[in-house]
Amino acid sequence: MEKIKGLIDAPFTPFYPNKEVNYEIIPEYASLLARNGLKGVFINGSSGEGYMLDEDERMKLAEAWVKAVPKDFKVIVHVGSTCVRSSKRMAEHAQAIGAWGIGAMAPPFPKVNRVEELVKYCEEIACGAPNLPFYFYHIPAFNGAFLSMYDFLKAVDGRIPNFAGIKYTFESLYEYNRCRRYADGKFDMLHGQDETILPCLAMGGAQGGIGGTTNYNGRCLTGIQTAWEAGDLEKARELQNYAQDVIDVICHFRGNIVGGKRIMKLIGYDLGPNRTPFQNMTDEEEARMKQELEAIDFFNHCNK
Amino acid sequence: MEKIKGLIDAPFTPFYPNKEVNYEIIPEYASLLARNGLKGVFINGSSGEGYMLDEDERMKLAEAWVKAVPKDFKVIVHVGSTCVRSSKRMAEHAQAIGAWGIGAMAPPFPKVNRVEELVKYCEEIACGAPNLPFYFYHIPAFNGAFLSMYDFLKAVDGRIPNFAGIKYTFESLYEYNRCRRYADGKFDMLHGQDETILPCLAMGGAQGGIGGTTNYNGRCLTGIQTAWEAGDLEKARELQNYAQDVIDVICHFRGNIVGGKRIMKLIGYDLGPNRTPFQNMTDEEEARMKQELEAIDFFNHCNK
Amino acid sequence: MEKIKGLIDAPFTPFYPNKEVNYEIIPEYASLLARNGLKGVFINGSSGEGYMLDEDERMKLAEAWVKAVPKDFKVIVHVGSTCVRSSKRMAEHAQAIGAWGIGAMAPPFPKVNRVEELVKYCEEIACGAPNLPFYFYHIPAFNGAFLSMYDFLKAVDGRIPNFAGIKYTFESLYEYNRCRRYADGKFDMLHGQDETILPCLAMGGAQGGIGGTTNYNGRCLTGIQTAWEAGDLEKARELQNYAQDVIDVICHFRGNIVGGKRIMKLIGYDLGPNRTPFQNMTDEEEARMKQELEAIDFFNHCNK
Amino acid sequence: MEKIKGLIDAPFTPFYPNKEVNYEIIPEYASLLARNGLKGVFINGSSGEGYMLDEDERMKLAEAWVKAVPKDFKVIVHVGSTCVRSSKRMAEHAQAIGAWGIGAMAPPFPKVNRVEELVKYCEEIACGAPNLPFYFYHIPAFNGAFLSMYDFLKAVDGRIPNFAGIKYTFESLYEYNRCRRYADGKFDMLHGQDETILPCLAMGGAQGGIGGTTNYNGRCLTGIQTAWEAGDLEKARELQNYAQDVIDVICHFRGNIVGGKRIMKLIGYDLGPNRTPFQNMTDEEEARMKQELEAIDFFNHCNK
Repeated sequence: MEKIKGLIDAPFTPFYPNKEVNYEIIPEYASLLARNGLKGVFINGSSGEGYMLDEDERMKLAEAWVKAVPKDFKVIVHVGSTCVRSSKRMAEHAQAIGAWGIGAMAPPFPKVNRVEELVKYCEEIACGAPNLPFYFYHIPAFNGAFLSMYDFLKAVDGRIPNFAGIKYTFESLYEYNRCRRYADGKFDMLHGQDETILPCLAMGGAQGGIGGTTNYNGRCLTGIQTAWEAGDLEKARELQNYAQDVIDVICHFRGNIVGGKRIMKLIGYDLGPNRTPFQNMTDEEEARMKQELEAIDFFNHCNK
Repeated sequence: MEKIKGLIDAPFTPFYPNKEVNYEIIPEYASLLARNGLKGVFINGSSGEGYMLDEDERMKLAEAWVKAVPKDFKVIVHVGSTCVRSSKRMAEHAQAIGAWGIGAMAPPFPKVNRVEELVKYCEEIACGAPNLPFYFYHIPAFNGAFLSMYDFLKAVDGRIPNFAGIKYTFESLYEYNRCRRYADGKFDMLHGQDETILPCLAMGGAQGGIGGTTNYNGRCLTGIQTAWEAGDLEKARELQNYAQDVIDVICHFRGNIVGGKRIMKLIGYDLGPNRTPFQNMTDEEEARMKQELEAIDFFNHCNK
Repeated sequence: MEKIKGLIDAPFTPFYPNKEVNYEIIPEYASLLARNGLKGVFINGSSGEGYMLDEDERMKLAEAWVKAVPKDFKVIVHVGSTCVRSSKRMAEHAQAIGAWGIGAMAPPFPKVNRVEELVKYCEEIACGAPNLPFYFYHIPAFNGAFLSMYDFLKAVDGRIPNFAGIKYTFESLYEYNRCRRYADGKFDMLHGQDETILPCLAMGGAQGGIGGTTNYNGRCLTGIQTAWEAGDLEKARELQNYAQDVIDVICHFRGNIVGGKRIMKLIGYDLGPNRTPFQNMTDEEEARMKQELEAIDFFNHCNK
Repeated sequence: MEKIKGLIDAPFTPFYPNKEVNYEIIPEYASLLARNGLKGVFINGSSGEGYMLDEDERMKLAEAWVKAVPKDFKVIVHVGSTCVRSSKRMAEHAQAIGAWGIGAMAPPFPKVNRVEELVKYCEEIACGAPNLPFYFYHIPAFNGAFLSMYDFLKAVDGRIPNFAGIKYTFESLYEYNRCRRYADGKFDMLHGQDETILPCLAMGGAQGGIGGTTNYNGRCLTGIQTAWEAGDLEKARELQNYAQDVIDVICHFRGNIVGGKRIMKLIGYDLGPNRTPFQNMTDEEEARMKQELEAIDFFNHCNK
């Protein structure tokens, strides 16, 4: 199965001020991402507030993205939900409209405590799109599924034909590397934390990854891999350090979904508010964030 | 606002073997519950696998229950979901079809960490059914919303006009009692753990409650309050102890949603399997559970 | 084995301003407790900052308490530590000086994850004082030992000859009751949360208990059981509610060890500061706490 | 202040079969470590079961190590305990006997929740050995002190004169790097997870580190840095992968303290059992572990 090379972006879902989905802005958004070196999008995931959307909105967003992206720009549709039948329908739909791949995280409810439960969940969804690669999205901090991914790979191997790999959004580079080495690298281990691309590359991983701060800091993040491959370690470190500086800022403003989405507005792409229960930033918070970003000269670094 | 008196049942959602919803069995199910002393149902909640159903199924189930129940038997519809717009639609629907009340738990994703987020979430949903009492369903073990319910009441008070109270499914009888005493008992604190009805009654609470093991052990559980009110402490203790014995058994079989649902089959009401990712009981497990129930003479105690 | 009847107090360890142990004040402190209806003390536990003392100080404190208490006033010495050899020595010492009993909580390091580890730990300590009853002190919020106490009783039964029971400081009245009913009430289940004495009594438990707020609210707390036994439910509820009001206050000031210890000063028994890493209350905090206590008329209720 | 270069080992504490400390074997043990490229030892820490020893044993162990090590081989004494006065005495002793440095982890009881509490704790200990560098040992998985180390550095800076840096045993390479970059690299950030030395080196860190599996896999682990500095990325990866393979094995046998200590016996250095509450490996488990190690050809790799 093809392995992803380079960085995929996890876009925010654009809303109008009344919190209805803004499909209009997507072509422009897609252009920005392609221009900055991203290789595709992983839509309706955590950055995209996928769980806050209904099934119909999620399908329409998938259609909008598939239609908007340039040639060879991958659209991976996150179809995970707490209702596996709904997820399967979204998987079928993704395949029908020509998406490149699908993905699903573990459901946050009920909390998944056994590898077998997770395999079953993925199996029922993945079979809805048998021609597309299926990625499991591991983000246990969000859904409590602190399971061994190595044991999960063993359980999945040979059982889900279109299982492609894992979007690994967790701190353990040790487990990441064990999974990467599983069966001589059989599965595609997409690195999922923008703050550690360089160390992961050094270990042999991070050939492909999915980013969240790539929405507004894409050239910096894609540049890490370029510099590493060119043997320019100093440049790679400088870029990785700068990526961390930007992440520091959003951590002061409730993270990427809230703070990061607001950065988009500051660079000219107003993607609107977050849906409830996210607590939107106040104007005062926005002003403070802008100052913090100016202090690291962000607006001359980021790429619009 | 009217306070609930007596026990409300949280029914399981009946499925056919293929996991499609079995609406047919609901009238018979409702009769069983009314016969055993229950005062109503809280549908599409955790016992009812509400999060595993899609919006359409949840609405149809609400209609089926409203149609099936005897006069004065309350139907409270759990409308919580991760998509607040969908929840609001279900609230509107509940009011339109003549449900008695609505409820919502905190969303499991994103994990709610601030009281203000939770108030906002409840507010947007509750306003969909302004004529119905709205209950917040506090079950932090399932969704991670370990917030102070006392602070929540203070924040909600005067802000959500149809806020009625809390279904309190948590171990802290201390916090429960503080909430019960808030503003001289302004809000309805429904007790939500079948294992501690008697101690809660002693403290002045548990006038109303919502049960999960009431599906198959209703007379025992409703009997606790009757005995207590009749001043028969020994009887109340005996019944509470027995209720705990039954709960011990289901704890050996993945709890009420999995184990409890299977007990229904053993007493003649086959409600089918659980949906993924729940791991259904094997026949061997069912046989073992039957033995454990026989050892406490359950089949002569429960009421069919 | 004798079962404890009534409430035992968990005293604070008195320090001089320089944080050296103040042994002088103990006779006066013991008189206060006896006067307020307490039946004994559980020393060097969590309220007593036992883990912040060295082995020598703990032994001297045990000697001071044994010497100070009136006849038939029980002294139970908490001897738990992370060094099981040190704990055993303290157990031997407790027996040698004529203490009534000993106790130990699970060590916080390493976190105990298996019942067998806990049994072994208790066994090695208990055998140091074979003539004294040994109580396991269950307070998982403090040491992470979230193990099934029912399974622990099964494992301990018949293996530790002087095992007497559990000081149960956890919210689950369900588990408490299961343990209480184990082997027809073989073990002594000391109730360990002042906020739920009444509900526990109703269920058949709390015949004996160990309190932390009994240091400054002893008559109220011992009164709950008296009222209950006299059949005066209203009085019992009133006292339990009041006990919760007092606990509300200390919860605003870092709990009993910090806030509660400072109340002692306010009622005329200055027990000094807490040891590091506890953060002592500022004068401003003390003033605010005093106000909150006055608002519930505490200084006319408590008993000096 | 001098920064540590290379790897320091965290030795196990040798016991006789009766669990008394075996001081005799220490010279031989020290030789092994020096021979394998280690630059020093961090004694009485988690691998060394420091919390399971009493103060006297800990001091004698410090003396034995200081006496046993070759010239320029650093002895850092972990003096952390729940009793800060005892810790301070051990700090004074370490300085008096000529140790190179001291360290302390956050106490596991009470759980430290505020940066200020932790600073105070370190301050009271560090001032016992004013002439020695003091390292904070960050291992929150063991003591629950999940505090921001960046905020801790800010709070400590300028307040504890002999504060040298952090032994960082946590997964977040992002936080590690932020700390490393704090005030232009003012503090010494010792890397503390053997499984991620290479990725950390790539990011600019891990110039110094403290290892636990270095006891029996020292040449492999010290080789990672050598290969990296020689520009031999392939070799560095191969060694890091192998280090992870060895760690995989101990993870099957209750980790380094239990499983790793038993490996020492298998390579000819019998360091005896673990103290309670650790559950010692059975002979059957030892045999299985031996097989797993043979399967990765460990006994020809490790260095005796």
